[in-house]
This record gives sequence, C-alpha cells and structure tokens, in this order.
Amino acid sequence: MQFPKTPNYSGYFAPSGVEAEVPCLPLIEGEIPADLDGSFYRVAPDPQFPPIASDDIWFNGDGMVTRFRFHNGNVSLQQRWVRTDKFRLEREAGHALFGAYRNPLTDDDSVKGKIRGTANTNVVVHAGKLYALKEDSPPVLMDPETLETLDSSYDFNGRMTSETFTAHPKIDPRTGEMLAFGYAAKGLCTRDMVFYVINPQGEISKEVWFQIPYYCMMHDFGFTEDYVVFHVVPIIGSWERLEAGLPHFGFDRGKPVHLGILPRDGEAGDMRWFSAPTCFASHVMNAHNEGTTVHFDVPMAPGNMFPFFPDTEGQPFEPREAAARMTRWTVDMRANDDDIAMTRLADLVGEFPRIDDRFAGAKNRYGWQLVQDMTRPVDLPNARSASGMMMNTLGLVDLETGKTDTYWIGPVSSLQEPAFVPRPGSSREGDGYIVVIENRLAEMTSRLLLFDALKLSDGPVATLGLPFRMRPGLHGNWVEAAALAPAAAL
Amino acid sequence: MQFPKTPNYSGYFAPSGVEAEVPCLPLIEGEIPADLDGSFYRVAPDPQFPPIASDDIWFNGDGMVTRFRFHNGNVSLQQRWVRTDKFRLEREAGHALFGAYRNPLTDDDSVKGKIRGTANTNVVVHAGKLYALKEDSPPVLMDPETLETLDSSYDFNGRMTSETFTAHPKIDPRTGEMLAFGYAAKGLCTRDMVFYVINPQGEISKEVWFQIPYYCMMHDFGFTEDYVVFHVVPIIGSWERLEAGLPHFGFDRGKPVHLGILPRDGEAGDMRWFSAPTCFASHVMNAHNEGTTVHFDVPMAPGNMFPFFPDTEGQPFEPREAAARMTRWTVDMRANDDDIAMTRLADLVGEFPRIDDRFAGAKNRYGWQLVQDMTRPVDLPNARSASGMMMNTLGLVDLETGKTDTYWIGPVSSLQEPAFVPRPGSSREGDGYIVVIENRLAEMTSRLLLFDALKLSDGPVATLGLPFRMRPGLHGNWVEAAALAPAAAL
Repeated sequence: MQFPKTPNYSGYFAPSGVEAEVPCLPLIEGEIPADLDGSFYRVAPDPQFPPIASDDIWFNGDGMVTRFRFHNGNVSLQQRWVRTDKFRLEREAGHALFGAYRNPLTDDDSVKGKIRGTANTNVVVHAGKLYALKEDSPPVLMDPETLETLDSSYDFNGRMTSETFTAHPKIDPRTGEMLAFGYAAKGLCTRDMVFYVINPQGEISKEVWFQIPYYCMMHDFGFTEDYVVFHVVPIIGSWERLEAGLPHFGFDRGKPVHLGILPRDGEAGDMRWFSAPTCFASHVMNAHNEGTTVHFDVPMAPGNMFPFFPDTEGQPFEPREAAARMTRWTVDMRANDDDIAMTRLADLVGEFPRIDDRFAGAKNRYGWQLVQDMTRPVDLPNARSASGMMMNTLGLVDLETGKTDTYWIGPVSSLQEPAFVPRPGSSREGDGYIVVIENRLAEMTSRLLLFDALKLSDGPVATLGLPFRMRPGLHGNWVEAAALAPAAAL
Repeated sequence: MQFPKTPNYSGYFAPSGVEAEVPCLPLIEGEIPADLDGSFYRVAPDPQFPPIASDDIWFNGDGMVTRFRFHNGNVSLQQRWVRTDKFRLEREAGHALFGAYRNPLTDDDSVKGKIRGTANTNVVVHAGKLYALKEDSPPVLMDPETLETLDSSYDFNGRMTSETFTAHPKIDPRTGEMLAFGYAAKGLCTRDMVFYVINPQGEISKEVWFQIPYYCMMHDFGFTEDYVVFHVVPIIGSWERLEAGLPHFGFDRGKPVHLGILPRDGEAGDMRWFSAPTCFASHVMNAHNEGTTVHFDVPMAPGNMFPFFPDTEGQPFEPREAAARMTRWTVDMRANDDDIAMTRLADLVGEFPRIDDRFAGAKNRYGWQLVQDMTRPVDLPNARSASGMMMNTLGLVDLETGKTDTYWIGPVSSLQEPAFVPRPGSSREGDGYIVVIENRLAEMTSRLLLFDALKLSDGPVATLGLPFRMRPGLHGNWVEAAALAPAAAL
C-alpha cells in the first residue's frame, strides 16, 4: 500500500492515519490557563487508502477528527477517523472504491449510488451533538466524548430531505439556533438549495427551498439578526466537466458574483439577489445588518484562489490575483438597483477568518485570520498551504480602529485555521485566547499554540508539543465543556 | 502536569503517552516481504504520571505495548498502555500513587499492599495468550489482537502461588512448554524462588521451590534440553536499603556469582550450585547441554553495568568495567568442584542478545545483539541507552566460525532490542529477518527496520517510518499469525 509521491501526499501533506489518545500533551513553554474548560475540535482530510487515480486533491481525504481537551491546566488529545459510509466500505475492501473529488463517475461500480461524503471539512457542536461535515453529503454524528461515529447519515429524524448539508453551519448566539443550508440539494450540479433552521433542541424548525443563479461551490454563508446571506462566486461545475474527467469545479472569470439575501422570517419569494463583477471569496468572517442594510465581510481576491480548480478558459493560475483581503460587501434590501458595494476593511493578505463567535450575526469589532506575509522569508520549497500560499502569520484586525496586530511564526513553519476561545467569566468581545496548530515544516512536527487573542504580537502564552504531525486541516471550533454536559444534549 | 526535566524524562526519553492505531506505516525504503504474516510485540516503560519524587529511573514507567502487524506486505501499528492495577488506581486519582522502583515504602498510603507491577518489561505469547510482564508481580493478560487488558493479575487459574513471575519466560520449541520462574516469590527481598513449567495448553504442570544463595535481581535465566539454569549475580537488595531510601538494587562487588542448575525432570534436592568470582551478567542469549555439561551464554562484564543501581561500597561507575562481551559459562553436573569455566565467545561489546528462537535450549550457531561500537562517532550528548551506553550497532556472532557481522546505524541514532523473524517456509537456523526499532535521536523520531538476519552489513531490506517517537523499550518478540489463530488458544 503506497501513496502517490505527489505534493498532495508528500512531506507535511503525507497521510497520517494515526488514531490516538494522549492524556497529557507536553507543555514546551508558558502555561495553560487552569480555568479553561472545553475542547478544541478540528478535522483534517487524511486518506485511508491511496487514490484510485495517480493523484487526488488534498481535501478529498477521509475526515480525521482531533479533539484537544483543556481541563485543569492539562490538555489531552484524541484523534479518530470519521466512520463515513465511504470509510467503512473502503476498509472492508482494503482499498479505495470512491474516485476523484465530487466525481461519482470515477467510482468503483460496487459503490454506485452510495454516499460519497468524507466528513473532512468541519466539526461543529450544537444541542450537545457533534456534527462532522462535508458539504456534498448529509451530516455525520459523532460522540463528542469518545469520537465514536454514531450516525453516518443523519437526517434530523427524517426532516432533512436535502441530499447535502453545508460544512459551515452557523450558531446564532442570540437565539441558540443553528442555521444551515444544502446546495446541489436535489442532486449533483443542481441549482437547488435549501436553507434550514435547527432549533436549540437540534430539530429542523424551518426550511426554505430556492435556486441559485448558477451552480457553483457554495462553501460558506453568513447571517445577521434579520437576514441570511448567500454569496455565489464563479467556482462553477457541471456534469459535462465530470464526464470530461475535469476537476469538479473550475473558475469561470466570465461570470459575475451574486449575493442572495433571505429574510430570516421570510420565504423563498422574499429573497432578493444582488450582483457585482467577477471576483473570488470563500470563507465568511461575519455579517450584520443595520435596518435593511446588510454587511457581509469576506476575504476577497480579484481572481481564482484555488489552483486545483483551474480557470475554465485555461488562464494560468496567478498568485497575485489570488491574494485575498478582508472586504465588506454591502447591499440594501430597499435599494432600487441590485449592485453590491465593496469596501476594503484591511490590507492583510490571507484567509481563514474567525471571530469571537458570541458576536456572530452582530456587528463585531475583532476579526482573526491567517495571513500570508510576503515580506517574510520562507526557508522551505514545499511550504505551501491548500491554496498554494504560505500562511505564515496570525493576524487580528480591529474594525473599529482599522489597526492590525500580527504574529509571524518563522521561516520554516505555517499555521492552520485558528479558533477563538472566550476567557471564562468574561463576555467582552475578544477577551480570550486564540488556539492554533503550528505546522513545523522543517521538523515535520506540530505544536498547539495558545495566544492572548488581543495581544498576538506578544507571542504564544502557551506552547504544547504534539506527539505526531497534524496533517493540514480545514476547520475547527472551541466548545465549552458546559455545552457537552448531559443536560445540554436534549 | 509536568514531568521532571531530568534525563529519565527528557529528550528521546520524554514520556510518550500515545495510545494509537495506525493501519499502514509508510515505507521509506525497500520492501516488506509479502509472505511475512505475524506481529512484532514490544513494550516500553512510559509513565502515565510524573513521579511522586523529583525523579525516577527510566524502567519504572507504566508498560506501553506496541504491536507491529505484518500482513500482505503492509505493516500496521497498535499501541496501548497495559491496564495494570497501578495504572488504573493512578488514573482514577489523576496522579502517581506508587513511589520509587521496587520500594513500597515510598507509596501513598491508599495503595499499601496493592500490586505494584508496571508490566513494562516483556510481552510474550504462549498458548494463544499475550502476557505483559514485570518481574516483581504476576503476569498481566492482554488480548493479542486488540491489546485490551484482560486480567491484571493472572494466576493460572489459581495454580500460581508465587507473588512474582519473570519477565523472561522461555518457550521450549521442542516441547511447546513455557518455562518460567518467580523470585522474591514469597515476598519482597526474600530468597525464595519457584520454577514453573507451563504446558502447551497454558496450564502450570510443574513447580519447584528453592532458595537462591543471596537475594538479588534475577532478571533472566536459561534452559537446555535437560536443565534449567539460574545465574545469581550480585545486584543485591534489602529492606535496609529500602528503609534508607536507597535504590532497591546495588552492585556488591564483594560477592561471587553463582550458577544454579536444576534438572528439568528433578526437584529442588537435585539442584546444584556453582560459583565464580564477581562479575556482571543480565540477559541470557541461550543455553544448551552436552550430557551433563551445561553451557550458558551471556554478555558478561567485569563490573557493574547499571549506573542507576550504584556500587554498594560507593565506588564510582566505571564505563570500561561495564563493557559486556558474549561469554560462555560452562559447568558439569558430575564435576567434583563447583567452579564455573568462562570462555569469551566474541569481542563485540554490547547487550540485548537474541537468537533464532526455534533453537532455544539447543546449540545455536547464530546470536544477534546490540553493539556499542566505541570506534564510531557519536554526534549527540544525550545519546545514551538505559545502561548509559550508546547502542549504535546491530551485531551478529557466528559461533561456528567466530566471525561477526555488524551494521552501524550512524552518529545520531541508536537501536532498541532486536528480534528474529523466521523466513516463512524455512527451518534453517538464521534464515529470516531481524526487526529492530531505530531511535533517530537528532530528529526525535523512530523507524522500524527489517534486516536480512545473516546479512546485517548489507543494511535494512525495509525501512518504515513511525508516526511518533517510540520511547526506548525493553523487550519484544515476533509472533507468527498462526500462533494467534483461534485454534491455538486452547
């Protein structure tokens, strides 16, 4: 059993395959605040088997969930593969059965029609349930304490009829609801989408079906007190592409972007679509509304950010066009035109935006993100991130003052997506910590770093050694211990 | 929770604490013979908690068992702590309760009288059972497939009355019996010993109680077709030492060594003791008899090999006196005197002798061992083994020709104890492989190496990367898959 010797499977991106429990991570420097009581869950694509084809993109690997449990100043680690249907079928076979990313035409005949999800994109806790998510398939439920897979195709007790569920659901701290959606919801490459409200008890309490202007990768979304916001960006796909053996998605610079605004108390007919010239945006920092004016904040690049989803017209990938900067998209539901106003919020180049999640849907002052600081030296040829960039810096943007604060991790390391950890007992925005995994590329090892969230440039307040390399991951979240208490699991 | 910053807990000796399953270890070079079907089990001391005192010796850590499963050219890894009584009690408490190595006077009051064993010294399969062993306590049974602890204090269905069971039982390939013993068998520091025969069905079929000339560390023994051989070497201990807070054992160069020979079909009265001037020997390569002449082959040093068990008269540790060379001790059960004749078998300096276990108890031609090659450069200050030596070379001694063959692992690595793996289908002595863990001290990583057993100097035929550091271990064994088949577990 040999993995390809391609960049997707080599060096720091080599598959890990380690399922583990480690009761105490060694503290290298600093101190873990003793009052932190909760877990940082994250997930990484980690292929169980070599691909059927000679290569595959990094984020088609099987979801491997890591939990860092903070308690009494100690941090333990658990890591388990999600037992998706795909994982179980392939383990039984002893080799890969599912083919290329989002292309069922490349699958082994024996698995035609099976759920292809890898559950490798995000891990989210709501109503005491741990959801492992991939946007092309239903949620997978895991036990938040043991990481055992409980349901490989959860349908909310029959209430979810969408074929898919986003990997970026949002929890509204004001209502306790989880807001979510499915795209390609009635089948691969369909324009059908559904918006779901999941009530604090974990049940679907509302659904709105609609269609997007064109089929594309609907990776994330936003919500405000009164609206839900969907950005349509031309990472397009089609059955024709799949039949031609092309990557599922490609970047079609000929298409405009759109912003769909759905009133939270409305139905599909209340939705309004706005437009702007082509650009690229994937992850959403936050959104908020002032009356009927809706603000939607995203790292935005002029051109394609995903080299593995190439330009549909064959234009070569252009790193300078892939540089994303935090940008506010503003629309007014009462406006006569359908234009989107765009305002640059900060000059930091980067992605993976995060906020103090207690301010999700409201006007937030602080945003954290990974930053690609091109002025810094890079000592390794293979020091790339998923997007081909070197995320070498942790950044904080203060939207009130416009000031930024950054911490450069050094010439031979990069960073994975950060998450915000509130300081126990404090409700002040930004009062807390940032937890982030450092990829020590020269050593092929990883560390877990904890920063004072508002003092990034002071460096980590605690540095933990990890006993094995954390393959580059996608998303993760901090979950207070209280949110996992039996009473929370209604 | 912080471990001491002493050499016993730092660098490559830092606790690991990783319980893991890894389905496929990456092959770095060479090829795993596809017909190898079996498991290499090994165990390492790996403390769950920092010691009560400010330091502790390396081999008082909790037993962490690793299984490398070879099948169809793939090698998977499992690693689990043995759930000893000590482990369970301490996990419940959240900190150490048991104190210094073999000194119950240093324990927390709450665990007085509890079994102190760590099961950290050897893992042996016999009659389908996996035994995890520490010489100061009863065997622990583990599931050989899952590494789940099945019985933390196995007594052979009530037949074992000794308080202890050796970590070096021997399996007689001729009879299928497991031969074993207990020392300090009627209590700590007692001279009482018992010899056990465990039949191929796993039941105790014979026991012989006797006393040794003085209480000492009876770490290993030998057997031949007709005899069992016990070497008494002055690594002495006493309650006075424990009360004084000294290490359990010390080296008393004033005492002679003894060799006790027990006929396998005899009783205590048939035992005969032989003597020689003081020296040091711990592990046994093999033994055999020609009529009443008994040969017993051990790496032997003129002086103390264990710096952590210091000289009882305060003499400083002398590395040159700790240099062990393979030596044959020969006695004749019909001799008029009680002298032991000693013959140097090879000039290689080292320890951890192994043989092709199909020749245990018979005259073997080949012996493998770790070698400390002082002519080689060492690039790391902390590159020590348990005995303070740098085991940097794998060695083979051909006892027929007197020739040796060695492989130097390089200036920044050391090796753990090797094990012999028979080539499937072949019964010729030495026809097979040597499996050994490489400690890559500069990188703090480990690899699993497979050598052609009779061509060590050709270098590894396969090199596997391990995803996390293997803390230095003690002993391990290769077990054919067939030996774990349900039919074998009678």
